[in-house]
Amino acid sequence: MADIYLDNNATTMVAPEVVQEMLPFFSEQFGNPSSMHSFGDKVGRAMKQARIQVQKLLGAEHDSEIVFTSCGTESDSTAILSALKAYPDRDEIIITAVEHPAILTLCDYLEKNEDYVVHKLRVDKQGRLDLDEYQDLLCNKTAIVSVMWANNETGTLFPVETMAEMAHAKGVLFHTDAVQAVGKIPLDLKSTKIDMLSVSGHKLHAPKGVGVLYLRRGTRFRPLLRGGHQERGRRAGTENSASIVALGKAAEMALEHLQFENTQVKAMRDRLEQGLLAAIPNAFVTGDPTNRLPNTCNIAFEYIEGEAILLMLNKMGIAASSGSACTSGSLEPSHVMMAMGIPYTAAHGTIRFSFSRYNKPEEVDQVIAVVPKIIANLRKMSPYWGENGPVADPDKAFAPTYA
Amino acid sequence: MADIYLDNNATTMVAPEVVQEMLPFFSEQFGNPSSMHSFGDKVGRAMKQARIQVQKLLGAEHDSEIVFTSCGTESDSTAILSALKAYPDRDEIIITAVEHPAILTLCDYLEKNEDYVVHKLRVDKQGRLDLDEYQDLLCNKTAIVSVMWANNETGTLFPVETMAEMAHAKGVLFHTDAVQAVGKIPLDLKSTKIDMLSVSGHKLHAPKGVGVLYLRRGTRFRPLLRGGHQERGRRAGTENSASIVALGKAAEMALEHLQFENTQVKAMRDRLEQGLLAAIPNAFVTGDPTNRLPNTCNIAFEYIEGEAILLMLNKMGIAASSGSACTSGSLEPSHVMMAMGIPYTAAHGTIRFSFSRYNKPEEVDQVIAVVPKIIANLRKMSPYWGENGPVADPDKAFAPTYA
Repeated sequence: MADIYLDNNATTMVAPEVVQEMLPFFSEQFGNPSSMHSFGDKVGRAMKQARIQVQKLLGAEHDSEIVFTSCGTESDSTAILSALKAYPDRDEIIITAVEHPAILTLCDYLEKNEDYVVHKLRVDKQGRLDLDEYQDLLCNKTAIVSVMWANNETGTLFPVETMAEMAHAKGVLFHTDAVQAVGKIPLDLKSTKIDMLSVSGHKLHAPKGVGVLYLRRGTRFRPLLRGGHQERGRRAGTENSASIVALGKAAEMALEHLQFENTQVKAMRDRLEQGLLAAIPNAFVTGDPTNRLPNTCNIAFEYIEGEAILLMLNKMGIAASSGSACTSGSLEPSHVMMAMGIPYTAAHGTIRFSFSRYNKPEEVDQVIAVVPKIIANLRKMSPYWGENGPVADPDKAFAPTYA
Repeated sequence: MADIYLDNNATTMVAPEVVQEMLPFFSEQFGNPSSMHSFGDKVGRAMKQARIQVQKLLGAEHDSEIVFTSCGTESDSTAILSALKAYPDRDEIIITAVEHPAILTLCDYLEKNEDYVVHKLRVDKQGRLDLDEYQDLLCNKTAIVSVMWANNETGTLFPVETMAEMAHAKGVLFHTDAVQAVGKIPLDLKSTKIDMLSVSGHKLHAPKGVGVLYLRRGTRFRPLLRGGHQERGRRAGTENSASIVALGKAAEMALEHLQFENTQVKAMRDRLEQGLLAAIPNAFVTGDPTNRLPNTCNIAFEYIEGEAILLMLNKMGIAASSGSACTSGSLEPSHVMMAMGIPYTAAHGTIRFSFSRYNKPEEVDQVIAVVPKIIANLRKMSPYWGENGPVADPDKAFAPTYA
């Protein structure tokens, strides 16, 4: 059986066209774009093109609003820490309880060690935010709001455009970690009030080790990395030209495939989801099924362990994920599932299947053929499962309305 | 005339073997090394090998002392800022006046905006430090010492092993920006007291966008990027696996070519230098000619502008540099030349020729054939130069002993 990769929210294959585009920048056009000779010149022009390609994908007004970084985590840290330095009189941060560890871990650190007040917006059972709670928290002590555009585990979309307007109405900066959204849904930043936005290249078929911080013109900013004048003084360090060119190409291709993503890729995802739910009892989709990324499906298989499911899937050549790759290795269930109030017996058994345009419809059939058997076999070994279904339900009170 | 690249201290060609080694990690073994499936597994093993390859080049005791970062600048910032967070009661930093902008700009910022006291060790006319001045500054207020191993413009080597011992004797952390030294001179960190060391991949024929922070086991440390558990919690962000594998291969190749660098490459450098000095009056080598990198030669051509020389060289297909690529665009002469007391009329006309193992002896002949004419032509246009040499010497007082 061929390998089936359904872990595209963790990382993606670099598109072959992207590899071709970056190759000349390793051993031919390898000059330092900051140098005074034509070895560097050509590289500078290619980077300019990449900046415009990313600008178009984001719908940004100016290509100078694109700052290349080394990854989504760096973009996130840069945004948050910049706001805290730029607004030294403000000591509150608003995030959500379901942010990626790149935001959560940093904010936990800031709260514990640097006396900042971090407000974590709660989510309901479908992973949705309460905008009234948000409105009440916004004030002139708020240095920055950071809300992810799409949740990496469930794909749930947050109303960041509305939330950015609400922040601006109170004079507060708004950042969004859009690592999972960029390339999957249409964006038009120039028509929003979003001040900063993080992109990770390797989530959209560019290589690992390159990202973007979108920085709206006029936004008060303090760099995280100081040194040379690169990126207009906003991010020091010799530009990673090959990867920047690659990210430009990947952005161009993502824009071209946006419709495909929201039709064909979505159709594969939907068919997988319906197929698994039809074949497997005591399974339900987590997050907001009516408002989420087209490529993501997170299913809770009750009364078994997600890690065990992954191992069995892996034996069959199928790659999927439980929670975020960045938190794997931990024995705790996902903080996203906990925040939604998913009971332990279900949260432990959640599996994320995330598609890309490189998946094939026949792979869906293969996964549908395999997963129900895996679940059934694992449940035979589960203390919570008998011949006719669950033998005990410690969380009877919890009845998912979207099962 | 073929292109001749003599700007290897700015950046290097990625070795073809290194490109080959990294290629499979873009579109085949593209898994996230933090993932729970074998797509990620293979990548984890390759990264382990890369860590050992870098360990060997540095002569580090443990491969776990190698932390992969996105560039030399990030490694430098991480080291300095970590020390300040780890020793909050100490508010002094010791650096040199000739550090790279990655250190200088950060320390200038810390001095101006965050109330740290930054001591910049002075250098003499040959770029050498005064260890008595250093000894006097070391105290229990010193949070960190950061001294580059080799200067990027002149190649002058600093006695960092001795200076690290002096720091340790006073209970002070020692960091070295070894971006220019690694791969050019033999290193054996385990026999030193150096606590932290920065490496940049693209200076040793690996791609741009990857670096290393060597972090001696037991060193008190605070991460710059927080988020996922990558790099044992010392640098969050999905690992740039392709570039890490590339850096490992580049490190292995650098170790294999160390002797070549210090014999054949050095011989090319020496021949260029002697050829140019013999053919061109009023020119001298800057820095310490008896104690410097084997690949670097920085020559001051008096009474003309370095930028003009570079443009003429560029027309002839020769790439060289004046000062650091990270400071190019500035009209000021190099801070390194100023620190050494090189007079303006010479400092403005300094050119750095930096070799790599990919240069060919015949390139040296071509450069020797071309440069004297360029210098003579430019001097014809210089207000300071007449038919028989300099017409006025505003810096007569300065008589370089090493001309």
